[in-house]
Amino acid sequence: MGKICVLRIGHRIGRDQRITTHVFLVARAFGAEEGILCGDEDDSVLRGIARVSDLWGGKFGVKYEKSWKSFLKKRKDDGWKVAHLTMYGEEMVNFEKVKKENGNCVVVVGAGKVPTELYHMADLNLSVTNQPHSEVAALAIFLDRYFGGKEMLKKFDGKLQITPNTCGKVVVHGENR
Amino acid sequence: MGKICVLRIGHRIGRDQRITTHVFLVARAFGAEEGILCGDEDDSVLRGIARVSDLWGGKFGVKYEKSWKSFLKKRKDDGWKVAHLTMYGEEMVNFEKVKKENGNCVVVVGAGKVPTELYHMADLNLSVTNQPHSEVAALAIFLDRYFGGKEMLKKFDGKLQITPNTCGKVVVHGENR
Repeated sequence: MGKICVLRIGHRIGRDQRITTHVFLVARAFGAEEGILCGDEDDSVLRGIARVSDLWGGKFGVKYEKSWKSFLKKRKDDGWKVAHLTMYGEEMVNFEKVKKENGNCVVVVGAGKVPTELYHMADLNLSVTNQPHSEVAALAIFLDRYFGGKEMLKKFDGKLQITPNTCGKVVVHGENR
Repeated sequence: MGKICVLRIGHRIGRDQRITTHVFLVARAFGAEEGILCGDEDDSVLRGIARVSDLWGGKFGVKYEKSWKSFLKKRKDDGWKVAHLTMYGEEMVNFEKVKKENGNCVVVVGAGKVPTELYHMADLNLSVTNQPHSEVAALAIFLDRYFGGKEMLKKFDGKLQITPNTCGKVVVHGENR
C-alpha cells in the first residue's frame, strides 16, 4: 500500500479556515501520511492540526507550500500519482486504478474555483457522486475506498484516547502522555 | 430500505454556516430524504440548500425546528430509530444494527458541545473512528455504509447535470429545466 499525501489548494484565510481544517483532520483520521496547504499562508490551520496530533497521536502534520504546481511536479518526478477530487470527474469506480497501481498518491482537493491546469496535471480526475457537496466528504470516501475500510482500525497511541462507548464519553490517558 | 432524516443540532449563525451547509449537501447527495436544522434559525442555510435542489434536482429540503428534543420524541413515537454520530460512540461495526432493523432513521450530528440528554435519547451512539475529525465526513461514511454504496448511483434529474469526464467540466442541461 502506498502513501497518501493530501494537498489542499486555493485556501483562503477566514473563509476556508474551518473547512480546510476539517479536510486535514479527515486526512489524518483516515490514514494519510501528510498534508500540504497551498493558497493563503495560514498558520492557524497548521497549528490546529499540530495540536490535534500532539494530543491524539500519530505523525500526521501539515506544511505550507507556495506553489502547488512546483510541488506536484516534484512529486510526479518522484513517481507519485496525482488524483484530483472534483464533481466533474470520472465516477469513483476508477478509484480502483489508483489502488491497483499501489504506489504513492497525492490527493488534491480545491477550495473555490480550481485552475484548469490541475485537471491536466492530474493522472485521475475523480468524482464522488456528480452532485455538489463537500470536499471533506469526498476525501473521506476516497480514503475509505483506498484503504478498504482498514483505516478505521488504525491506532494512534495518543496522550488522549477514547474507549468506544454505547452512551456517554470515556476518555483515557495513553502511556505516551 | 428505510428513510433517512439528517438532524443538525446546535447550529450557530456565522460560525457554523458553511459546515452546516456541507452537512446538508452531503445528506442530499448521499440519499437522505430530508434535513432538519436546530439551534440558531438561519435562513441562509435553508435557502442555500433549496437553491441546490432546484438546480441539481431531487426533493431534498431542510426545515427549521425550534426544539430537537420535541422533534426526536415525535419521530421516536412514529417508530423512527435515532443514530447519533459522535467520536465517543460505539465503533461503526454497529452500523449494521441500524441497517438490519431496516426502518426509518434520524441521524443526528452536533455542532459544538452536544447535550448529554441526546446520548440517552439516541438508540445508537456511533463513532466513525474515535479520532477528532469532521461531522461532514462522519455523515458521508455513515450514509455510504447504510446504503451500501448504492447512493452513489442515484439520479437526480436536475436542470443541471454533469457528464463524468476524465479531464475537464461537462455540464449539460436536463430536460426539467
